[in-house]
Amino acid sequence: MSALEIVNRDPASQARTGRLKLARGTVRTPAFVPLATKGSVKSLTPDDVTGLGFDMVLGNTFHLMLSPGPERIKDFGGLAEFMRWPGPVITDSGGFQVFSMGHGTVADEVKGRRSKPEASQGQGRILAIEEQGVRFRSYVDGSEMFMGPETSMEIQAALGSDIALVFDECTPFHVTRDYTARSTERTHRWLDRCLEWHSANGPQEQLVYSIVQGGVYEDLRRESAAAVASRATGGIAIGGSLGADKAQMYEVVSWATDELDRTAGERPRHLLGIGEVDDLIRGVELGIDTFDCAMPTRLARHGTAMAPRPEKRWRLDLTHATGRDDHGPLVEGCECPCCAAGFSRAYLHYLVKAREFTVMRLLTLHNLYFVVKLMERLRLAIDEGDLPAVAAALRAGAAPWEA
Amino acid sequence: MSALEIVNRDPASQARTGRLKLARGTVRTPAFVPLATKGSVKSLTPDDVTGLGFDMVLGNTFHLMLSPGPERIKDFGGLAEFMRWPGPVITDSGGFQVFSMGHGTVADEVKGRRSKPEASQGQGRILAIEEQGVRFRSYVDGSEMFMGPETSMEIQAALGSDIALVFDECTPFHVTRDYTARSTERTHRWLDRCLEWHSANGPQEQLVYSIVQGGVYEDLRRESAAAVASRATGGIAIGGSLGADKAQMYEVVSWATDELDRTAGERPRHLLGIGEVDDLIRGVELGIDTFDCAMPTRLARHGTAMAPRPEKRWRLDLTHATGRDDHGPLVEGCECPCCAAGFSRAYLHYLVKAREFTVMRLLTLHNLYFVVKLMERLRLAIDEGDLPAVAAALRAGAAPWEA
Repeated sequence: MSALEIVNRDPASQARTGRLKLARGTVRTPAFVPLATKGSVKSLTPDDVTGLGFDMVLGNTFHLMLSPGPERIKDFGGLAEFMRWPGPVITDSGGFQVFSMGHGTVADEVKGRRSKPEASQGQGRILAIEEQGVRFRSYVDGSEMFMGPETSMEIQAALGSDIALVFDECTPFHVTRDYTARSTERTHRWLDRCLEWHSANGPQEQLVYSIVQGGVYEDLRRESAAAVASRATGGIAIGGSLGADKAQMYEVVSWATDELDRTAGERPRHLLGIGEVDDLIRGVELGIDTFDCAMPTRLARHGTAMAPRPEKRWRLDLTHATGRDDHGPLVEGCECPCCAAGFSRAYLHYLVKAREFTVMRLLTLHNLYFVVKLMERLRLAIDEGDLPAVAAALRAGAAPWEA
Repeated sequence: MSALEIVNRDPASQARTGRLKLARGTVRTPAFVPLATKGSVKSLTPDDVTGLGFDMVLGNTFHLMLSPGPERIKDFGGLAEFMRWPGPVITDSGGFQVFSMGHGTVADEVKGRRSKPEASQGQGRILAIEEQGVRFRSYVDGSEMFMGPETSMEIQAALGSDIALVFDECTPFHVTRDYTARSTERTHRWLDRCLEWHSANGPQEQLVYSIVQGGVYEDLRRESAAAVASRATGGIAIGGSLGADKAQMYEVVSWATDELDRTAGERPRHLLGIGEVDDLIRGVELGIDTFDCAMPTRLARHGTAMAPRPEKRWRLDLTHATGRDDHGPLVEGCECPCCAAGFSRAYLHYLVKAREFTVMRLLTLHNLYFVVKLMERLRLAIDEGDLPAVAAALRAGAAPWEA
């Protein structure tokens, strides 16, 4: 039986609303999952995050393995207990971060940008990618470390997350079709090893999600989707390179969800690392149930607010001098803690320029509020049967609370 | 008539409770005033600060002059309106910061530590100290700037603070008696120029505090206290070098407050830059009404929590490995937002090591809570007539909520 109870379906797309029932609580889907990479949503407390309306956060296996270490977190009963998060937690497998060290910045790569090998210097680095797993140097203390499918699952068992992701190679955009094919096959073998370890040793209440790879090649994506759907996992994630632009990304995701529609039953689906406003709308239409992305929180820390401005990728860069004398609110009609408190754009602009911590928090609250309201609006639209109109209004620049 | 309405006096000391009635509201005294140096209490919002129980914050004339500039803030109606702080604001004169550039770090100097001229390199620097004022280079853009008594008052008028401090030279510890004497006399001449400018141009509702200087020399301190008391200011601050150690600091402050008791009437008194727990207790006993200090908030940002540990200067350094596996709370019995949320020392230790923003906020909330509760307890003790016993308990290590 699937952990996802589907509530309503959009007749015009693959979109659906649901209740994802996990060990520590229920997630209203489709949902955005904020990052608590190192065990905190940066600048916020758990109360802030639940107050905004989020049901789940995502912790990072790779970073938490290096510090404070899985044993210390296990000693507290798991990551949720360690960080005092009262709801479900998803942990990524660490694959993305491990492979980032080898491929320059995978975050750039999966979005089709150029390779930047220098970005990994002075940090950890990959020593060898082998069938068994990956050997690398810790960015914390330079010691040699190893991560393979079993390691990742063991760490995630210690973290006690509600959802664990299998260990995969996140193939970047610039590699060959042949490399992608071989990597995807290895990812499937690693999937089996993850499931084997988990069924023998993993926490029973922990759901395991497999990961569809296959790069930007339709046959490889479809084969990978069918392959992972054939394994008995609690859910399925879509990862790896999704293309050079948004059009290609949507196509690549659609190959996977199309295949999953036919073979995966009603299991929940997670789209890894995607979170721009138009991508979330399209992802929902493609039948994605949960999303995670660093973008809303990272933009906030760099002084960019999310705003209903599709022509600017829904971004308002507060470092621009145009805001210097602007008495107006950050985003008209927004009721986030930052906007509701009445801070002007001029004040926020100044705080960003002065690098004051307070503004990172204010913009983080604002951006996550924007995203949570977007997801709420999309869920309501699906439940009320008017997703096409609502999606069109949002794409045209309506704020989530207006659309 | 004094803005300070004295409510109760401690028969055994100079301590008193009061209501300091300012343009934007009333401050319950004795009170600690958190720093909003650049227009925000670092990592907090105004709601956080009022929620903790503070009545007033302190903004920094020097920093705000450089950015965003007094005109921009005036355009918003003042600093309180700009930063959306709902209560009274005190602004320092900028003297301390301007002279910091010339004397190495005055913050070190006034506490009697060694001169560190290298600390001012790469930042602004003093070009000349003249009768008219101080010429210096901006640390923001390297441009030549000037600040004198009239400039400082004009900026503070633009900032629209409830309390403005006169422009003084903050004499450091290592200068000669002769330099201190001449500097103190100039500070008195500057005081007159400040008052002249303010009576002609300043906001009527803005209270002006003079500043007692005189270094660590009893005759100079007493002369300075009498000199500033003879001018018609709304209140009196005590600044400058207070000595090499706490014993000397208490003595230096006592010369000033002793003199003020005889000559200053019931005007409110502010002690500049002092805020350690034992210093606050002694300062209250010496009849100080308000205090400001960077210590509680700065310590927090560097991973140190305030705790009832007099033998450790009321500090708990969370970077120490001893906290790594400590499941216990930060401070037993504390009901600050951090402790009440149940975060363990181990989690906070880890967040400090990982340099996560959230922990700066949590420790800032904790430390300011500790200080606000300390001041509340001291006020209650004065009102109930048991200050000696309460002060003794606090000095012996009782938490403010236990003493």
